[in-house]
Amino acid sequence: MKATVHVTLKNGVLDPQGKAVQSALGGLGFAGVEEVRQGKVIELTLAETDPEAARASVEKMCRELLANTVIEDYRVDIEG
Amino acid sequence: MKATVHVTLKNGVLDPQGKAVQSALGGLGFAGVEEVRQGKVIELTLAETDPEAARASVEKMCRELLANTVIEDYRVDIEG
Repeated sequence: MKATVHVTLKNGVLDPQGKAVQSALGGLGFAGVEEVRQGKVIELTLAETDPEAARASVEKMCRELLANTVIEDYRVDIEG
Repeated sequence: MKATVHVTLKNGVLDPQGKAVQSALGGLGFAGVEEVRQGKVIELTLAETDPEAARASVEKMCRELLANTVIEDYRVDIEG
């Protein structure tokens, strides 16, 4: 079973990496880029076969390791 | 108009960051994690209002800056 976790900075948290990308895009001549936010995507392959158990387990992983919940949000998608 | 870019390592390219996460999850007692791959997600807010033009522009950004196409794949999603 596969799980995909998106970890993104919460709204209002400064994103220097996104700002750097935005500035670099401007330097390359891309106009009209109003905002850039950068996050992480983590793809997990799990031995677990029950979707509900897999989701519960991955959400626990997010809270304990994958995301810093003080400044980051996470979203878990489970696929067959 | 918003665009979301997923940048992931191509299959077969070693992912030391993913391996480190897998090993850390094992250390925290999560069993049955068979593989972990880590990538980037970049959310762009664009002034462009035409979806086709936005997609073309973002794909150009991917080729020129956001992805290293030698070792990485990218996927562009455009939303209203």
